Amino acid sequence: ARSYSITLLPGDGIGPEVVAVAKDVLSAAGSKEGVELRFREMLMGGAALDAAGVPLPDETLAAARASDAILLGAIGGYKWDNNEKHLKPETGLLNIRAGLGVFANLRPASVLPQLVDASTLKKEVAEGVDIMVVRELTGGIYFGKPRGFGTNDNGEETGFNTEIYSASEIDRIARVAFEVARKRGGKLCSVDKANVLEASMLWRKRVTAIASEFPDVELSHMYVDNAAMQLVRNPKQFDTIVTNNIFGDILSDEASMITGSIGMLPSASVGESGPGLFEPIHGSAPDIAGQDKANPLATILSAAMLLKYGLGVESAAKRIEAAVTETLDNGFRTGDIYSPGTTLVGCKRMGEEVLKAL
Amino acid sequence: ARSYSITLLPGDGIGPEVVAVAKDVLSAAGSKEGVELRFREMLMGGAALDAAGVPLPDETLAAARASDAILLGAIGGYKWDNNEKHLKPETGLLNIRAGLGVFANLRPASVLPQLVDASTLKKEVAEGVDIMVVRELTGGIYFGKPRGFGTNDNGEETGFNTEIYSASEIDRIARVAFEVARKRGGKLCSVDKANVLEASMLWRKRVTAIASEFPDVELSHMYVDNAAMQLVRNPKQFDTIVTNNIFGDILSDEASMITGSIGMLPSASVGESGPGLFEPIHGSAPDIAGQDKANPLATILSAAMLLKYGLGVESAAKRIEAAVTETLDNGFRTGDIYSPGTTLVGCKRMGEEVLKAL
Ligand SMILES: CC(C)[C@H](C(=O)O)[C@@H](O)C(=O)O
Ligand SMILES: CC(C)[C@H](C(=O)O)[C@@H](O)C(=O)O
Repeated sequence: ARSYSITLLPGDGIGPEVVAVAKDVLSAAGSKEGVELRFREMLMGGAALDAAGVPLPDETLAAARASDAILLGAIGGYKWDNNEKHLKPETGLLNIRAGLGVFANLRPASVLPQLVDASTLKKEVAEGVDIMVVRELTGGIYFGKPRGFGTNDNGEETGFNTEIYSASEIDRIARVAFEVARKRGGKLCSVDKANVLEASMLWRKRVTAIASEFPDVELSHMYVDNAAMQLVRNPKQFDTIVTNNIFGDILSDEASMITGSIGMLPSASVGESGPGLFEPIHGSAPDIAGQDKANPLATILSAAMLLKYGLGVESAAKRIEAAVTETLDNGFRTGDIYSPGTTLVGCKRMGEEVLKAL
Repeated sequence: ARSYSITLLPGDGIGPEVVAVAKDVLSAAGSKEGVELRFREMLMGGAALDAAGVPLPDETLAAARASDAILLGAIGGYKWDNNEKHLKPETGLLNIRAGLGVFANLRPASVLPQLVDASTLKKEVAEGVDIMVVRELTGGIYFGKPRGFGTNDNGEETGFNTEIYSASEIDRIARVAFEVARKRGGKLCSVDKANVLEASMLWRKRVTAIASEFPDVELSHMYVDNAAMQLVRNPKQFDTIVTNNIFGDILSDEASMITGSIGMLPSASVGESGPGLFEPIHGSAPDIAGQDKANPLATILSAAMLLKYGLGVESAAKRIEAAVTETLDNGFRTGDIYSPGTTLVGCKRMGEEVLKAL
């Protein structure tokens, strides 16, 4: 039997609750396909700060690197919001992304037929939306140097960051995006600000060059301000979007809100080789933590992405997706996606229903 | 009688059509208040590139500086899209903003009761939305140095830009935003990415410091990715937003699309002293240029902002706003805001109707 090791990073807030539920689903889906999964839980984020004084302990990164895939809950909370930069939970997240070299962040934003009413967009605009945002995750302004604080010629304090991309950083994310687009609708929209930024001009040049390797994919370019508008005006025009780290941060969140069901959305972060990192796109929701109210479906669907993109066990991923669909069809809803006529359940119960459906 | 000189920059695409119409409305509204307006038309954008080889001729900047206010149509078009950076119409726009020192860009995004159906958002989410985005316009990554192309240690091409803000750049835009918020709903939301970027950490620190000068305004902070979501989820939560140049570019376009009537939205760019720059937020729409189809209302409302913020003749501004409301109430609509049961008109006719209503 195939056997894989999974690092679990429950993190903060609702993280532990949703990871616990997703772990059981992951385990069950694996065994149905004859895949054995071994789990090891490690500290990250605020939990690691409290226990070990750093947001990403060396042991955590080492264990993650040595495993076959990583499932992360969520990190952060009011408690650590005013920490210095190197002691922020977010810094742990950025460091594990960089440490694992997971440069390609895949963020699907699909409107499920059962949940179309949850969108704030009109039904005819929202229904059928199925977008995949491919975000560059280990470069750009998030990591560019120089960065920091300084003093300008007038003796005033300054804060600065560097948006920088090299040709190979763009080429590799472009290739991932073209591959993804090829397996989806065959359309790729590259988003940049090439009318103003040199980093974006190089981005556009390289993406255009890589396009010649994918003659079957239709490439278009769009400025980021226009993309932010078009996602609201007519999200169905998009199939796959590829963009840099900061624009991807903004646009993938906008796209996810357009679906109206942020508690449903998973993400996958993968590199050239080595283990991938899988996590729901929602945050740690400290206000509802520990109350069994969280929606575990985003983490369960992240577990499905882990099976598909992380371990290559697509059959097990399909089982989970089908089980989630069935659970929704059976009318079960957590508070965030509840509507009259459906059955309100908590985090654990939702997990049990998915397990039943498996 | 008071007399002012206005520089007209028709620009490209539909620019000349909408500026011609707005000029007549501006003139008429001024004279009703005993204000004489003298106009001088200058070249900018693609029009300037074609006629003079540069996107912002020295005479244009000099004339603009010497005048009391500037009304701009729109710039850009496919024809110049592949020009080198210094020969792009957009570079002319960036240079006039910098040349005039108009660091504060005010972008209202309001859903007019007559046009609530034009929004792709559900009626109950869209109606009553009234947001003012205050965008920093002459700093940040748009102008930061170093910028350009280079070679990294592996001999690969790189493209880079610098996001940088000084304390005084932040302080002055914060003060404008607090003043604006004070005259509106008294709530200011500052948007940044202070969990990752040093430039944003300084931004948050300075905005928080300036807040003590405005005890009557309620300040909150939001990360840019969350703001992009919240604008879709519940735009009514926002009153006034203040943010940096690039985040403002993205979020103000997103906010404007939420209103569903981009052809209606004006903007004002003002500095510490000197003339302000007033322009519709829509682009040059080359596909409908010269067909008398453009909606001139955004430029007409920009003329109202010119009277209010540029010349301090608020009474004349109010006349224009009232005339636009009346024209909409009378059922006149250009194609972009047309709905069954209203009267479809062209650009010129729309201008005539506003003049009648004045
Ligand atoms: C928490 C934060 C550092 C992170 C990011 O900006 O990448 C988050 O917003 C995300 O998108 O995963
Ligand atoms: C045309 C472009 C340079 C400009 C900008 O990015 O500022 C435009 O998008 C705007 O918002 O006025």
